[in-house]
Amino acid sequence: MSVRAGIIVTGTEVLSGIISDRNGPWLSERLRERGIDLAHIDVVGDRTEDMLAALGFMRDAGLGLVVTSGGLGPTADDLTTEVVARFQGREMTLDPALEGRIAEILKPLAARYPNLDRAAIAAGNRKQAIVPAGATVLEPVGTAPGVVVPPAEGREGPTVVVLPGPPRELQPMWAAAVETEAFRAATGEATVYEQAILRLFGIPESEIALTLRELEDGGMDLAPLEITTCLRRGEIEIATRFEPGGEDAYTAFAAAVKARHADTFFSEDGSTIDEQVARLLRERRWTIATAESCTGGLLAGRLTDPPGASAYVRGGVVAYADAAKSALAGVDPGLIERDGAVSEGVARALADGARERFGADVGVGVTGVAGPDGGTEEKPVGLVWISAAAGDGARLTRRMYLPGGRTDVRDRSVTVALHAVRRLALGESDGA
Amino acid sequence: MSVRAGIIVTGTEVLSGIISDRNGPWLSERLRERGIDLAHIDVVGDRTEDMLAALGFMRDAGLGLVVTSGGLGPTADDLTTEVVARFQGREMTLDPALEGRIAEILKPLAARYPNLDRAAIAAGNRKQAIVPAGATVLEPVGTAPGVVVPPAEGREGPTVVVLPGPPRELQPMWAAAVETEAFRAATGEATVYEQAILRLFGIPESEIALTLRELEDGGMDLAPLEITTCLRRGEIEIATRFEPGGEDAYTAFAAAVKARHADTFFSEDGSTIDEQVARLLRERRWTIATAESCTGGLLAGRLTDPPGASAYVRGGVVAYADAAKSALAGVDPGLIERDGAVSEGVARALADGARERFGADVGVGVTGVAGPDGGTEEKPVGLVWISAAAGDGARLTRRMYLPGGRTDVRDRSVTVALHAVRRLALGESDGA
Repeated sequence: MSVRAGIIVTGTEVLSGIISDRNGPWLSERLRERGIDLAHIDVVGDRTEDMLAALGFMRDAGLGLVVTSGGLGPTADDLTTEVVARFQGREMTLDPALEGRIAEILKPLAARYPNLDRAAIAAGNRKQAIVPAGATVLEPVGTAPGVVVPPAEGREGPTVVVLPGPPRELQPMWAAAVETEAFRAATGEATVYEQAILRLFGIPESEIALTLRELEDGGMDLAPLEITTCLRRGEIEIATRFEPGGEDAYTAFAAAVKARHADTFFSEDGSTIDEQVARLLRERRWTIATAESCTGGLLAGRLTDPPGASAYVRGGVVAYADAAKSALAGVDPGLIERDGAVSEGVARALADGARERFGADVGVGVTGVAGPDGGTEEKPVGLVWISAAAGDGARLTRRMYLPGGRTDVRDRSVTVALHAVRRLALGESDGA
Repeated sequence: MSVRAGIIVTGTEVLSGIISDRNGPWLSERLRERGIDLAHIDVVGDRTEDMLAALGFMRDAGLGLVVTSGGLGPTADDLTTEVVARFQGREMTLDPALEGRIAEILKPLAARYPNLDRAAIAAGNRKQAIVPAGATVLEPVGTAPGVVVPPAEGREGPTVVVLPGPPRELQPMWAAAVETEAFRAATGEATVYEQAILRLFGIPESEIALTLRELEDGGMDLAPLEITTCLRRGEIEIATRFEPGGEDAYTAFAAAVKARHADTFFSEDGSTIDEQVARLLRERRWTIATAESCTGGLLAGRLTDPPGASAYVRGGVVAYADAAKSALAGVDPGLIERDGAVSEGVARALADGARERFGADVGVGVTGVAGPDGGTEEKPVGLVWISAAAGDGARLTRRMYLPGGRTDVRDRSVTVALHAVRRLALGESDGA
């Protein structure tokens, strides 16, 4: 029997769309790793009645565990611990030792901001040290303690794990929460699900639906697999979840997808295109440099995102103005004059210029019309040229018409460029 | 009387954290603009029972409107329309005219991918044309129609607006949904709330809590205002919501915050630092160029994010390798040798190099230790130097120790750099 769980993300600023929630997805993955089936993520504002309603909903849905994030700060609109105590039928009591430990944490802050009001800090400090009686305290990583709160004696319902909102506090405190007796008692033995992800690039989602139908019509047993497909930044992801015993069904399914879609299939181990490019560049001992126009630095930004990227990224040029394309990436001004900045020739010249100026093994050039203005009938918004060139003369150049607005076009262009680098590193080339 | 609403985001891939939801926050802002009070955003997987539970929860919470996103695709795991029909007590029926209109939409797709299976497309086409009887159809922007579904005759409960998952389909279809009779009947006359945002940079959140307490202690009436504060990418946001009649209270509150925190206050009209930098560069007719090390192109990427950025962004250099710092941004190799790549001198030289190489009015240099490796006792992970220089000799140079991991340090560095550009454009300078 597997315990089911819910997540409650609190905060009017999340509910109102001002900030986006990162904790729900992160906690979701952690629950899955532990074999805990997640049923709902509910986002509520900082209002007592709405938080109680969400807790009641999850209890009525039969969930055995609820994890909350947010609402543990020193200000009056931070209500979560108090609301959870009320829901569980537990009194709020001051923990003097905890108050002292929080005071220690606050000392360096006071040193850093000498003009802070001491009384305000002391009031916030005390508020954060008032916790539900009988709860297990999770030591603060920032200044806010978390709590694991089972229902009061004689009550039914989920155990509630109360965590702070900032991801860098929540994440280590989650690790502490799962070690508590109260957490173990609530979750017991759980089925550990496997999840595996296949990724494809360059085909529509409906083709995967067709593949699923044809595999089943052909007699393949997909029943042990919970398969979902989605389109994510231009790539198709096929996420499959299965219980122990479903491995063989999954292996057969993955092999069939790979065989049918060999030309667009690129990942079977969960790796992203970013991770594959990083690994291939390291394996081939290739350095890389970029010369970007419409993407304005986003390609270099994504290449330098992984730790240790300095081992293979030499650098890049953001050649936004035409004069910069010539001065910094060596593009012939006559070429820009003749073919326009968004052209095959300029994409190739940017790739070559990047390679030469930075002394890199591979150069990537990107030029396109990101919009919303600047499109013409001949060169509409979404037209992007990408070229990736290696020192041995290998080269891949692609023209695309990308859908969506400015942000989509820029983001998708970077993804296409990364796929071009991957294919180049795997030995593909357009030929002469 | 104001109608309250809920949002249900469907999709196992969202619930499992594989993709992050953009529709909840977007819909939240649209509801607020219409004076509709949002109570809950619930994320559920593609499972009939869980979706019914979420709908039942929102009905029981007294909500008059529910908006769903996702689950309208051509594949078997796309269940939303069917589940909503069942919840509302309505039959699913084929709309032949709609089937024909979707077929028209699919024609160009078939032309683009000539190898697609026609039968698969026809099956998906028909599925998407089966809608709840008595619902108002929202014409597809992609291939999936939406529906506005009131409860069946004689039933109580919310009207449900069913929209597709891709934001570029959902957003225009929302605009169509609010024009329908069924939507108007469900929402009636609603109180229009105002929301205003103040932003500050460079102080801790607890200072704002203190300000709120002191203003109330001093007799200011904050009761008409629903005030929430949050820390977002290193900036403090104070979001305030109020009903008509609360304008005077808000004006007094905003003026008091501005006066007390004049040194860190930067926005009272909802504008972000990105928008302010774009506006100031246009107003001063300044062009800008960047030379980035640890941020790897993210600063250029953010500067080129707004439409029309080509009017003031000349370009940038991502000088990741030390050789690139010298070759492309003109940094004296002896300076790197003597002070190290992460140093005040190199930040200044990068700013000057960017300005000169690109012929820009303002140059910005960023160099730091983003981690996770490469930190030393003297130069720990999180140490970042930023310099912004204008042609008239004005310059701002800052050293920071930024908290968090690699992604945080890179992101925060860009924010600090944008604030330096803002201050420079407003006439500040370190002096000689």
